[in-house]
Amino acid sequence: MDYAARFEALISELKLDGRYRTFVELERIAGEFPSALWHGPTGETRHVTVWCSNDYLGMGQHPDVLAAMHGAIDDFGAGTGGTRNISGTNRQHVALETALADLHGKEAALIFTSGWISNLAALGTLGKLLPGCAIFSDALNHNSMIEGIRRSGAERFIFRHNDPAHLDELMSAIDPARPKIVAFESVYSMDGDIAPIAAICDVAEKHGAITYLDEVHAVGLYGAHGGGIAEQQGLADRLTIIEGTLAKAFGTMGGYITGPALLMDVVRSFADSFIFTTSMCPHLAAGALAAVQHLKAHPEERAEQQANVRQLKAMLRAADMPILDSPSHILPLIISDAHLCRQTSELLLTRHNIYVQPINYPTVARGQERLRITPTPFHTEAHMRALVEGLIDVRERLGWHRLQTAA
Amino acid sequence: MDYAARFEALISELKLDGRYRTFVELERIAGEFPSALWHGPTGETRHVTVWCSNDYLGMGQHPDVLAAMHGAIDDFGAGTGGTRNISGTNRQHVALETALADLHGKEAALIFTSGWISNLAALGTLGKLLPGCAIFSDALNHNSMIEGIRRSGAERFIFRHNDPAHLDELMSAIDPARPKIVAFESVYSMDGDIAPIAAICDVAEKHGAITYLDEVHAVGLYGAHGGGIAEQQGLADRLTIIEGTLAKAFGTMGGYITGPALLMDVVRSFADSFIFTTSMCPHLAAGALAAVQHLKAHPEERAEQQANVRQLKAMLRAADMPILDSPSHILPLIISDAHLCRQTSELLLTRHNIYVQPINYPTVARGQERLRITPTPFHTEAHMRALVEGLIDVRERLGWHRLQTAA
Repeated sequence: MDYAARFEALISELKLDGRYRTFVELERIAGEFPSALWHGPTGETRHVTVWCSNDYLGMGQHPDVLAAMHGAIDDFGAGTGGTRNISGTNRQHVALETALADLHGKEAALIFTSGWISNLAALGTLGKLLPGCAIFSDALNHNSMIEGIRRSGAERFIFRHNDPAHLDELMSAIDPARPKIVAFESVYSMDGDIAPIAAICDVAEKHGAITYLDEVHAVGLYGAHGGGIAEQQGLADRLTIIEGTLAKAFGTMGGYITGPALLMDVVRSFADSFIFTTSMCPHLAAGALAAVQHLKAHPEERAEQQANVRQLKAMLRAADMPILDSPSHILPLIISDAHLCRQTSELLLTRHNIYVQPINYPTVARGQERLRITPTPFHTEAHMRALVEGLIDVRERLGWHRLQTAA
Repeated sequence: MDYAARFEALISELKLDGRYRTFVELERIAGEFPSALWHGPTGETRHVTVWCSNDYLGMGQHPDVLAAMHGAIDDFGAGTGGTRNISGTNRQHVALETALADLHGKEAALIFTSGWISNLAALGTLGKLLPGCAIFSDALNHNSMIEGIRRSGAERFIFRHNDPAHLDELMSAIDPARPKIVAFESVYSMDGDIAPIAAICDVAEKHGAITYLDEVHAVGLYGAHGGGIAEQQGLADRLTIIEGTLAKAFGTMGGYITGPALLMDVVRSFADSFIFTTSMCPHLAAGALAAVQHLKAHPEERAEQQANVRQLKAMLRAADMPILDSPSHILPLIISDAHLCRQTSELLLTRHNIYVQPINYPTVARGQERLRITPTPFHTEAHMRALVEGLIDVRERLGWHRLQTAA
């Protein structure tokens, strides 16, 4: 077996397809977000404006968050040196879990080293432990949910995206006695659209299912206390489990689930990916807790972000940019071609000092290649004007506007 | 479906079986490792000596590591706000990857948010992308390797623990043209034994296999520069991929793989668990880099740890304690019963202010329940005397010495 030839062929295929990912090397600058220093492959640097960060509210540089982290490092050191069960549970983990349960109005919470793992662990474990379980999964669910469902071994039924009627049809077709889980997201990352949570809960309740809602692109951002779309719509108590992340609006890293204490205990006790992993550093839990507490008490960041989203959306529309009409803070600008999408990103960087990463397959379907623009409270009107002018210039050069119009 | 009843039954079963895990809540104290503050369920606290930490060399409190983290938080903030591909690659990631590749004498490295994910991603991806791949897995491989192999969909062959002859037998029985991976560990966490790496590589090379070595319990601890058992034995170049962790001897959190640049590129490009995860915080990479650099240049911590291991082992033997004769820094004290093991841990804590977590199924096989004792450079002779005296007292009370002798 010529391993190298096989692997080289796989990489070549990605390159031909325009899907080979080149990581852009950044240097974030605390206090200057969304500006960052871009480091090029030959050592050159340039100051760029980042327009594709999931540090949606700039909490990754918030003084309270950084102070909490500094303090915890001074007091407790760096790592924990163990899994949660073997010397790795620290007070900061317990305090964060208590705050997250409170944020979502749930009995308990469980934190993980990433949101990806939280979905793998929770869905993988619950589905596996319920004999004959059927999991109903939205067609556009995130990779981590798909992996969790796959890992569970449960039978999977995919319902059309945001389509409660199709969900009802699928649920009605199986044995009513089977255990069931309905797994979906509130804000979908790539289209920025929002699930009809109440209607999906109606269907799930009718069929006696556990409901599992991924709110990673909503926690901190929506609801009076940043509890997500479920809080905003007064629906949190209809979701059995709400999953969230600490790595986006809460500015740090890690993921979590919240729900009934019994279910948290089950995931804690049976999920290999949780049991066999060194726990989160105490100072990360302390930093995340500071972010959660700040955003619980301060709606200002949310209001400023929403104002900026509205303003930029209006400016992009006025410039006739092909953006999806999303109801959330995510503004997808559809290019529809992997190579053009990559070139757009490159020209924005080299000609305009603007960094927006191209989003290609498999993150979105082929033909759906896009720039995914995420305004924060820290983007100024000057930033927005520069973005729109940059996009107009690049569109002229690459001609993707004509391609869009033709489609 | 009565979900609560089903989940309650599962938890009850764990409790009856002595396998229900109660997390011990600690407060690490930077500068006082291995002492920590234990927080009891009713609010009481006590100072305890931790004897079960994987912060093997106390790097979790090393001034260089903490200073690097403080500096990076001041400069770059908390989280990255993105996956490695979408605004989440920072200079600190690249610098750490370069240092890790150098540590193991490899072309390239790739970091992950945990060691668990690094095994899932690497084995899961490589096994999946090689058509007809057969993965040969040591019988005692860690859960994360087993999960990666399972995820790959490749056919799995389990060879008897540390048995190159059995490996050869299994490899000889399949089509020589099939792609093959041999996956094993250097230091096995629970028995503390060490693989015959050269003999396993002989067999793997004879059959043209990729070799994959998990060194999570060895990196930082063995070899002139902390490159692990492979470095110590001069075998690093015979391993295709070496996997390690930043969460044990390097004192922080995260995992990594090192190997040929092409293979790193393949995992980077195809592993969902890598692609769809927010990258590690820059300051964690900076802290881990400081730990790697310190331990590359300073063999003192390794020497002090080994001296303490020898001393404690002699003291435990002199007290006729049922310890496995391991060649590594891990001293397993076999109790052989889940309930007795838990009681031993509880009495050590309540009567002697010593914290060693009981290790029960599924982390070890039933009947193999144990305390897993890990001396560090920071355990003093007084700590050791207190441990041995505590164990003698608890053995008298619980009678597990007689049980051992009888067996």
